[in-house]
Amino acid sequence: MAAERLVVVGGDATGMAAASHARRLKRPGELAITAFERGHFASYSACGIPYWVGGAVDGPDALIARTAKEHRARDIDLRLRTEVTELDLDGGRVRTRDLENGGKESWTGFDKLVLATGARPIRPPLPGIDAPGVHGVQTLDDGQALLDTLAATEGRNAVVIGAGYIGVEMAEALINRGYRVTVLEAREQPMSTLDPDMGALVHEAMCGLGIETVRGAAVTEVLTDASGRARAVTTKDAAYPADVVVLGMGVRPETTLAAAAGLPLGESGGLLTDLAMRVRGQENVWAGGDCVEVLDLVSGRERHIALGTHANKHGQVIGANVGGGYATFPGVVGTAVSKVCDLEIARTGLLERHARAAGLRFVTVTIESTSRAGYYPGARPMHVKMLAERRTGRLLGVQIVGREGAGKRVDIAAVALTAGMTVEQMTALDLGYAPPFSPVWDPVLVAARKATAAVRAAEG
Amino acid sequence: MAAERLVVVGGDATGMAAASHARRLKRPGELAITAFERGHFASYSACGIPYWVGGAVDGPDALIARTAKEHRARDIDLRLRTEVTELDLDGGRVRTRDLENGGKESWTGFDKLVLATGARPIRPPLPGIDAPGVHGVQTLDDGQALLDTLAATEGRNAVVIGAGYIGVEMAEALINRGYRVTVLEAREQPMSTLDPDMGALVHEAMCGLGIETVRGAAVTEVLTDASGRARAVTTKDAAYPADVVVLGMGVRPETTLAAAAGLPLGESGGLLTDLAMRVRGQENVWAGGDCVEVLDLVSGRERHIALGTHANKHGQVIGANVGGGYATFPGVVGTAVSKVCDLEIARTGLLERHARAAGLRFVTVTIESTSRAGYYPGARPMHVKMLAERRTGRLLGVQIVGREGAGKRVDIAAVALTAGMTVEQMTALDLGYAPPFSPVWDPVLVAARKATAAVRAAEG
Repeated sequence: MAAERLVVVGGDATGMAAASHARRLKRPGELAITAFERGHFASYSACGIPYWVGGAVDGPDALIARTAKEHRARDIDLRLRTEVTELDLDGGRVRTRDLENGGKESWTGFDKLVLATGARPIRPPLPGIDAPGVHGVQTLDDGQALLDTLAATEGRNAVVIGAGYIGVEMAEALINRGYRVTVLEAREQPMSTLDPDMGALVHEAMCGLGIETVRGAAVTEVLTDASGRARAVTTKDAAYPADVVVLGMGVRPETTLAAAAGLPLGESGGLLTDLAMRVRGQENVWAGGDCVEVLDLVSGRERHIALGTHANKHGQVIGANVGGGYATFPGVVGTAVSKVCDLEIARTGLLERHARAAGLRFVTVTIESTSRAGYYPGARPMHVKMLAERRTGRLLGVQIVGREGAGKRVDIAAVALTAGMTVEQMTALDLGYAPPFSPVWDPVLVAARKATAAVRAAEG
Repeated sequence: MAAERLVVVGGDATGMAAASHARRLKRPGELAITAFERGHFASYSACGIPYWVGGAVDGPDALIARTAKEHRARDIDLRLRTEVTELDLDGGRVRTRDLENGGKESWTGFDKLVLATGARPIRPPLPGIDAPGVHGVQTLDDGQALLDTLAATEGRNAVVIGAGYIGVEMAEALINRGYRVTVLEAREQPMSTLDPDMGALVHEAMCGLGIETVRGAAVTEVLTDASGRARAVTTKDAAYPADVVVLGMGVRPETTLAAAAGLPLGESGGLLTDLAMRVRGQENVWAGGDCVEVLDLVSGRERHIALGTHANKHGQVIGANVGGGYATFPGVVGTAVSKVCDLEIARTGLLERHARAAGLRFVTVTIESTSRAGYYPGARPMHVKMLAERRTGRLLGVQIVGREGAGKRVDIAAVALTAGMTVEQMTALDLGYAPPFSPVWDPVLVAARKATAAVRAAEG
């Protein structure tokens, strides 16, 4: 019997994790695996790019989890610089173009298909936005292109458009390389993944770090010089000189191929799958990573969340199912953690606007505490915001802004959300305590106590 | 109507938290509060003593959460240096002795009584164990006495008997003060709060830190000089010179008064309470903190766990109930975290021997990962051991030994234990990920994946 043919479109976290896991379950004689990747690299940590650009990490090799050669040694036919240009689902084949050899096109047949096409940086349709010198940072190729620009540029002015995770991480990277950095954020506060009151703490800290952060600054145009290169970024109020421009407005699912093939997409444009990561309505097509929507277990809605950790889990689940095993991805609670210099920024669950959109009524509390016992050296301030449902007291979300030791505390709330705990139940959590690690009441417990009181008061 | 009379025995975390919380709920005209404390200090962080002795923290003032004066300003009649010597439950009164003024004795009546008598260091009945120069470190007075000994001693040899939490923390403190430190541990490995395989990692690290750690070293005697002062500690194999000796063998509940009054004690000698922290069989007597046993939610058994974080929660619960409110302490999962120099040591749930004693069958796995993405600067190794119940796959316990960022990760498991999660459910947890905070699979998730496989294999 001929081997089944698995084709993987996209050779980063989800695609190669799926291929590797399927290979562990099925020998080459049972399953032939071909993976297409249009870039020069596969199986890398895209999340590491800001640290490579900033010089904290050598790249790109350090960011590659498994080389193409290693994949091939494990009987995965990985083809770099090969772009899939069409999905023929009825015909069971994909059309590819070889990006190295004059664009030669060919068809490859499949019995099972994995779509792991990732995401692309949001690039608003503004004059000059496609000019040389304007960079997204989504792939290792993007990272290399940005580094090439920095190396070729003498000026020291950088503008980052958007103050989300990638925006603040890239601001730190460029500060570390000696740039004067201006971050232009269209909204009221940076980090719109936080509520504005918590985003304001990030804004304050960014200013303290020497990052000029302009709020309410919707970009109108990228100005170019005679050679067509980006030189400045304008808002309706001002122009900001820019030797390099970085896009930090977030990403959209890259589902052009899937859309053309008529596969089901959600509101964000991400593919819709079942819990086994099979594309809805398809028997032999799976999808995962930055190109899909995931179920938010707190709001009960599908959302697009581009994160390497989900992408890896998806790959694992897809590989198990494609390889004849069984696994599911039950959903997310919306956890994310980031840092800008020594400021740690974390959230899980719902923001106020998410909770309202989900039809929930809730109370919010914020507290300030410290990362260690107040008397212990290195104790740093830590702000925690907590949302709890009215009546039931169910935890809905937590946001944390602080210094060392603040970020990963969000995991406490992530597990509590997954378990459907109430804030009152959380007040009794047996969390690790010793003076170098926490005040005697962990800041998350302090917030839970205050939220418990707020839930009661709201019913009083 | 005359005010109800609340008497609190013991003025540290539980006692003063109970008094303070009750005061918030009841005015002085409704509730008169008297608290007796035999030491010179109240409301302090006993957990901070090793860091005070080591010089990292100024003391004792920095360790005092609320001064006696502040308590008195809030209408709590706190009497320091006053020892309660007898409980007359039928008569509704306690006998006290004034330790300052010639030992004057008197009786104080109560309507409600809170026992917060704490714990005392284990002091095995060996020759010389009570000699000057041998120190327990349980109270601020103990800490001051030890510092006085250090100041009066020219030698630089310190022996710590016992390598539990207090033992390793005191070893670090004495290393920081320039002592040659020998830790004598009767068991096979240090940190018997971990399984021996994880304790071995601690042993290795302690040796690397220059702390001589002798395993299987049961102390036989403390040798004294002509003046009666401790000068060496002997085991059956050797004698270790000692200018100071610190007891780090753990603590026992201090329930002498309670036992004399016929109150119910558990196997460890700790008081037994209901979920509202009321002493079993008593209507008007509450107890909490280091003098009680708590319900271990994983094994279903009562255990003695002396920890400031529980003591504070108990005080809060007692204060609410004494003050006419309602609160409970549902129990613990056995979380503890400590460090010796930069080595972080954490555990939650059951050790192998606890799980066996509880009648559970289980699988164990251990993994090695890193605290951050492997390529990110400062990533340090991290060992995680996980126990899961056979058949059900329910998480039973986690132990972590690593460097910066390792310890508080145990909270993930603490919440999962509280929620009764299986290790397979844990594999899908949405934990915070970014390269400075975690590998793309958090070490706890890596352990959960391996444990999931082990549970399946055990049934195969």
